[in-house]
Amino acid sequence: MVFILNPNVPKDKVDQFIAGWEQKGFSAILSVGTEHTAVCLIGNTAEIDMDHVVQTDDIVSYGKRVTEQYKAVNRTVHEDNTVVRAGGVPIGEGFFTVIAGPCSAESAEQVLEIARSVKDSGAKILRGGAFKPRSSPYAFQGRQAEGLEMLRAAKRETGLPIVSEIMNQTQTDLFEDVDIVQIGARNMQNFDLLKAVGALKKPVLLKRGLASTIEEFLMSAEYIAAAGNGQVILCERGIRTFETMTRNTLDLSAVALLKQKTHLPVIADPSHACGIRSLVPPLAKAALAVGADGIMIETHNNPAKALCDGAQSLDLSQFQSLMGDLKKRAVMEGKEI
Amino acid sequence: MVFILNPNVPKDKVDQFIAGWEQKGFSAILSVGTEHTAVCLIGNTAEIDMDHVVQTDDIVSYGKRVTEQYKAVNRTVHEDNTVVRAGGVPIGEGFFTVIAGPCSAESAEQVLEIARSVKDSGAKILRGGAFKPRSSPYAFQGRQAEGLEMLRAAKRETGLPIVSEIMNQTQTDLFEDVDIVQIGARNMQNFDLLKAVGALKKPVLLKRGLASTIEEFLMSAEYIAAAGNGQVILCERGIRTFETMTRNTLDLSAVALLKQKTHLPVIADPSHACGIRSLVPPLAKAALAVGADGIMIETHNNPAKALCDGAQSLDLSQFQSLMGDLKKRAVMEGKEI
Amino acid sequence: MVFILNPNVPKDKVDQFIAGWEQKGFSAILSVGTEHTAVCLIGNTAEIDMDHVVQTDDIVSYGKRVTEQYKAVNRTVHEDNTVVRAGGVPIGEGFFTVIAGPCSAESAEQVLEIARSVKDSGAKILRGGAFKPRSSPYAFQGRQAEGLEMLRAAKRETGLPIVSEIMNQTQTDLFEDVDIVQIGARNMQNFDLLKAVGALKKPVLLKRGLASTIEEFLMSAEYIAAAGNGQVILCERGIRTFETMTRNTLDLSAVALLKQKTHLPVIADPSHACGIRSLVPPLAKAALAVGADGIMIETHNNPAKALCDGAQSLDLSQFQSLMGDLKKRAVMEGKEI
Amino acid sequence: MVFILNPNVPKDKVDQFIAGWEQKGFSAILSVGTEHTAVCLIGNTAEIDMDHVVQTDDIVSYGKRVTEQYKAVNRTVHEDNTVVRAGGVPIGEGFFTVIAGPCSAESAEQVLEIARSVKDSGAKILRGGAFKPRSSPYAFQGRQAEGLEMLRAAKRETGLPIVSEIMNQTQTDLFEDVDIVQIGARNMQNFDLLKAVGALKKPVLLKRGLASTIEEFLMSAEYIAAAGNGQVILCERGIRTFETMTRNTLDLSAVALLKQKTHLPVIADPSHACGIRSLVPPLAKAALAVGADGIMIETHNNPAKALCDGAQSLDLSQFQSLMGDLKKRAVMEGKEI
Repeated sequence: MVFILNPNVPKDKVDQFIAGWEQKGFSAILSVGTEHTAVCLIGNTAEIDMDHVVQTDDIVSYGKRVTEQYKAVNRTVHEDNTVVRAGGVPIGEGFFTVIAGPCSAESAEQVLEIARSVKDSGAKILRGGAFKPRSSPYAFQGRQAEGLEMLRAAKRETGLPIVSEIMNQTQTDLFEDVDIVQIGARNMQNFDLLKAVGALKKPVLLKRGLASTIEEFLMSAEYIAAAGNGQVILCERGIRTFETMTRNTLDLSAVALLKQKTHLPVIADPSHACGIRSLVPPLAKAALAVGADGIMIETHNNPAKALCDGAQSLDLSQFQSLMGDLKKRAVMEGKEI
Repeated sequence: MVFILNPNVPKDKVDQFIAGWEQKGFSAILSVGTEHTAVCLIGNTAEIDMDHVVQTDDIVSYGKRVTEQYKAVNRTVHEDNTVVRAGGVPIGEGFFTVIAGPCSAESAEQVLEIARSVKDSGAKILRGGAFKPRSSPYAFQGRQAEGLEMLRAAKRETGLPIVSEIMNQTQTDLFEDVDIVQIGARNMQNFDLLKAVGALKKPVLLKRGLASTIEEFLMSAEYIAAAGNGQVILCERGIRTFETMTRNTLDLSAVALLKQKTHLPVIADPSHACGIRSLVPPLAKAALAVGADGIMIETHNNPAKALCDGAQSLDLSQFQSLMGDLKKRAVMEGKEI
Repeated sequence: MVFILNPNVPKDKVDQFIAGWEQKGFSAILSVGTEHTAVCLIGNTAEIDMDHVVQTDDIVSYGKRVTEQYKAVNRTVHEDNTVVRAGGVPIGEGFFTVIAGPCSAESAEQVLEIARSVKDSGAKILRGGAFKPRSSPYAFQGRQAEGLEMLRAAKRETGLPIVSEIMNQTQTDLFEDVDIVQIGARNMQNFDLLKAVGALKKPVLLKRGLASTIEEFLMSAEYIAAAGNGQVILCERGIRTFETMTRNTLDLSAVALLKQKTHLPVIADPSHACGIRSLVPPLAKAALAVGADGIMIETHNNPAKALCDGAQSLDLSQFQSLMGDLKKRAVMEGKEI
Repeated sequence: MVFILNPNVPKDKVDQFIAGWEQKGFSAILSVGTEHTAVCLIGNTAEIDMDHVVQTDDIVSYGKRVTEQYKAVNRTVHEDNTVVRAGGVPIGEGFFTVIAGPCSAESAEQVLEIARSVKDSGAKILRGGAFKPRSSPYAFQGRQAEGLEMLRAAKRETGLPIVSEIMNQTQTDLFEDVDIVQIGARNMQNFDLLKAVGALKKPVLLKRGLASTIEEFLMSAEYIAAAGNGQVILCERGIRTFETMTRNTLDLSAVALLKQKTHLPVIADPSHACGIRSLVPPLAKAALAVGADGIMIETHNNPAKALCDGAQSLDLSQFQSLMGDLKKRAVMEGKEI
C-alpha cells in the first residue's frame, strides 16, 4: 500500500505516521520528493481500511492499494478454476451451463411445460422467479411461496436442479429445496443477506448490481465466501448507462476480466441485460465466445402472455434453435453444454 | 396511456386488443396512421402494468404513461406540502432542518460531545450510524446495537431527536426509540424493507439509490406510503456518474424537480455526495438555494480520528461557522432553521 | 408522430393546433381522454423538428416519434446490407474484415514491418494514426503529415488499403491517397467535419462517441449520407460508464442492434474499448460471434516501446495467433476473413 | 510521480528503469516491498507522458501523478483569481455576471428586443446562437453568418458585449467582432479548434463536454492557455447520466471544485443542463450560492415560438423576476451583478 502525503508536512508528523504503522507490525519505506512524500507500507495490508486512513489522517492526500482487498475469491490465492456443483450439474471450467426458464413461475403447468422443453433442448438448470422485485408496489410481485412449489414440482418431474431469487434473510428456510439461491442485482450490496447466504451450504448465484463496479462485485462475493460459503457463481446482467435503446448495457469485458481476477465461475444473463428478444441469441453467442461459463436465458411457452418480461423471453422453439447453434460453438471452445 | 401498435397489424387483432381493454372497463380511442396505429386508453390506468403489456403483446411496439404511476406521494393528489414531524421537529414547508452528527457512533462520549455542540450551533436532529453498510467484509461495520444506545443516551441528554440507518426488516424493534428510521442508498430498492418500514408509525428518511432514477425514487417512497406510512423524507445523496474526482455527483436538479413532483419534504446530503470536506459548505448553501427542506451534514469532534468517512466530516467549529452562514441565508428564503 | 397535450387545454387552442398541421399537409387524428388529449400526426413526419414543437408549443407536454428520423441509413428503406469497398477490400455482408496496425505511425520501418506481418496473418486493411487527438497539449500528437506518408509507403509496398484519422475539415486534401477516412470518437458530433467527409468519394469509418447514444450515432452517419456519401462504416469502440477497471465499456449489444437498425457495416474496436491487452482476444471473438462485420486491432512490433497506447497493443505473434483462431470461427459464421 | 512495478521484476530491469530516469535528469527513489516495488520520481514530471510509460513499459503496473498535468490554468501556479474582461465587462472574482439571450438568433428585431430587455433587467452580456450544432442534419442549423450580424447590430444598439458559438477553426475571421467566442460541449475535445482559439486575443467561453471529467475539462482549457490565450471562462452545462427526467445533470459540485483547482472564472448554464424552464430559477440561485462567477440563461421574447430549445427559455418577464431575486442574493455573497 502506498500513501502520498500532503505537501509540506512537518518532519515530526511524518515520523509519527511511520512509527504508528511500525507499531502495528508493518514495514514502512519513506520516499521524500521535492513536492511530495510517499510512504510504502509492507505487510498484511488487506487488513487496513485504506479509505479510512486517507480520509482521517490529515497528512495523507492519497492512497493506493497494490494488493487487492478480496482474498477468498482472488485467483492469486486459488489458481485453479472453481467448479460449482448444483444438484450434480457442474458450472465452471470445461462446461458451458445453460440455465433457462420463465422470468416468473406462473402456474404448475406452465413451469412444467417449459422445464420439459428446455431440458430436451439441452438446458441443465431451471430458473423461475417466485418472489419478484418490482419498482412499483402496484406491479405483479410473483407467486411467492406457491411459485417455489411450482419449481420444486418441475424439478421432481424432470430432474433439473432449480434456481430462484431470495429477497431477504428470513427466507432461507423457504429455499431449502432450491438448488441455487439467487441474489438479485438490487440486493448485491444487501450485506445482511450476503452474510445469511454465506451461512448456507448451497451454491449462490450473485448478480452484479446495476451500478456496481467489478471490484464491488468481487467484494460482495467475498462477503459470502468470508461467511463460509465458497460456492458462488457470478452473473453479469447489464449495467446502467446513458443508453436508452437497450434496457441495460451487457458488459462482456467484465466477464473476461472477472475470469482473470477470480477463480469463481462467471455467467451472463443477456435476457435481462438487453430486454429485447432479438438481441438474446447474438449476445448468448458472444458470451460463450468471450469465455463465460454459462448463460441464463428467459424462456417462455407463450411470451405474448407472460406475466412479466415477455418482450425478452425466447419461446420454446427459439430457445431450441439457439441451443442447437450454441452446441456447435461449444465444441470449438472445448466446452461441454 | 397511449400504445403505439406495430406496423401492419391485421385489423382483427387490433379490434381484439381494443375489445380486451373495453371489457376491463377502459375506453379506448383508435388512431390509424399510414404506418402506425395508436390506441389511447382512458380510465384508471395507474392499475395497468404498462411494461408488461408492451413486452407481452406482440402487436404493441411502444407505450407511454401519461399519468404517473405514483399516487400517494404525487403532488397532483395532495397539493399542500407535507410537513413531517420527528420528535416535535418539523421537516418541510417553511423550515430548513439541519441534521448533523458523526458518520458512525463511536463512543458515548463522542456522540454526546458532538450532539451538544451541533445543538448549540442550531442543528435540530442528531444523526449517527450504528449499523454501517460497507463494501468490504473486512471494514469496520459499526457499533451496532451499542451504537444505537449511544444515540439514545445523547437524545436523553440533549433532547435532540435521532436518526439512524436500518439494515434489514428484522431490526424494526431495535429502532423503537429512534425518531427517524433511515433507509440507505443501497437499500432503496430492498422492497421487503420498504414494506416493513411502511408498517411503522414513524418518519422514514429514504435515500436515493446510487443509480436510481427520480421516478424509481418516487416509486420506492410510494412503496412505503402504500404500506400505510406517509411520513417519508426524501434525501438526494449523489448519483454515480463517470466523474471520479468527487465520490458521487450531487444532483441538485433532482431536488428542485422532486419538490414539483411530490408533496413530501426533500433534503440533501452533501457530505456523502462529494466526499470532500471543503465542498460541503458550498453545496449546503446551494441545497438551501435550490429549495431543499433541509440537509444532513457529517460532523465530527475529531475528523482526523473518525472511524469512518472522516475526509468529508466538518469539525465542530467548521459546522458552527457553516450554520451561522446558513441562518442568514434562511432568512432570505423565508425559512426557519 | 404522437403528441400528448397538457391537461385542460381549451378546445379552441386544440383546434388551432390541429388546423396548423393540416395546413402543412399532415393528417391529424384527435383522441380526447379524461385527463389528457393525444394528437396523432400522419404524413412525412421525418421533416418535423419534434423537440422543437414540444419545447415551443405550450399546449404540448410530450411527443413520440413513431418513425425514425434517419432515412438514408435506415434498414427499412434499404433492406440489403451495404458492402463498403476500400481499395478493393469489402467490408460488410459475408466478410469479417480485420483492420490492424499501430496506434500511431512512428517510423517508415515500423509501419512497414507491422504492415507486412499483419498482412501475412490475414489482416486486410492497415490502420495507423498520423494526427493523434490527446487530452493533454503536452502529450505526443502524432507524426502528422509525415505519418500519413509512412502509411502510404507501406501501402505501396504491401498493397494493403489504409485508414487514418482526420482531425478537421481543412485536411481532406491530405487524405487523398488514404483509402478510408476515420472520424474519431471525440469528433462524432463535429458536424462540419461530417459534412466535409460527406462530400468525399471514399469510405468513412465513423467511431461512436464516448457518450453518444445509438440514435445519435446513426444520426451522425445520416449527416455523412445526407451530404452525398453513403460509404459509411460504423465502429463501436466502447462507451464511458462508471466502471474504472476497463478504459471504457465495449457495448456489443449496440453492434447487434445497429445491424438491425441500419444496412451499413458495423465493426468493433476492442483495443481502445478495454485498454488492456489480455482482454483484446476474448472481445475480438465476441465481436465476431455477436455479428460484427469486422474488427480493428492495435498491433505493434514492439508494444513495450510504442509511443502511444502500448498497453492495449498485441505484438505481431499475439496477433497472428488471434487471427488463426478467428479464421476457424469465421468458417462457422459463414464469413470470409 | 509514483510508479508501482509488477511483482517479481528482476533486479537488473529495475536498475535499468531507474537509470533511464536519472539520465533524463530525474531523481528516482526505490521502495522494495514483499510483493511490489514502488519508484518515486522527482523533478519536472509534468513533462512525462505517464500513461505512455505505464502502457509501454512492461515492468510498470501502475502510475500515479502526484502533481497535476495542467500548469497554466492551475491555481497552485497562479493563486489570484483571474478576472476575464469582455468588452469592458468583468467575469470573475467579485462579480456574478449574467449572460442572457436566445438559444438562436432568429431575426434582427427579435435579438434587439431581447437584448434591450435583458439589459434593463441587469444582464451584462448578450448570448445568441448563429451556428447551431444539431444531432439531425434535417433540424434547423441556425441563421449562420446572418445570425452573427443580428448580434452585432444588437451590440451596437445596446452596448452589450456578445458571445456566440464557433463551429470550426476556419471561422475565426467571422468572429472578429464577437466579444467572447464560445466552444460548445461537443467540441470540448476538438483540439484543433482549441489551438485555433488559443491564437486569438479575446476571451473564450469553454463548455464542459457531456461526458468529460473535470480533469479533461481543465486539460482542454490548458490547450487554449498553452497556445497563448489565458482568457478562458469555464462553463459547467450538465453531464450525461442515466437520469432521463432532466436533459442532463447539472454538476454544481464541479463548479465548487473547479474554483479550488483553477484561477479561471467558472460559470454555469442551467438552461441547457436541465432543459426545463421551471428548474432554471432554482438552479440559477444554487449556482450563485455554490460560488459560480456567473450564469448563462436562455431568454426569449416568445418562448412558444422559439425556433430552438423554447422549453427551457425564460420569457422576458420571468427573466426580469429572476434577476430581481439574484440581485438581492448577490449582495449577501458580496458580489456585484
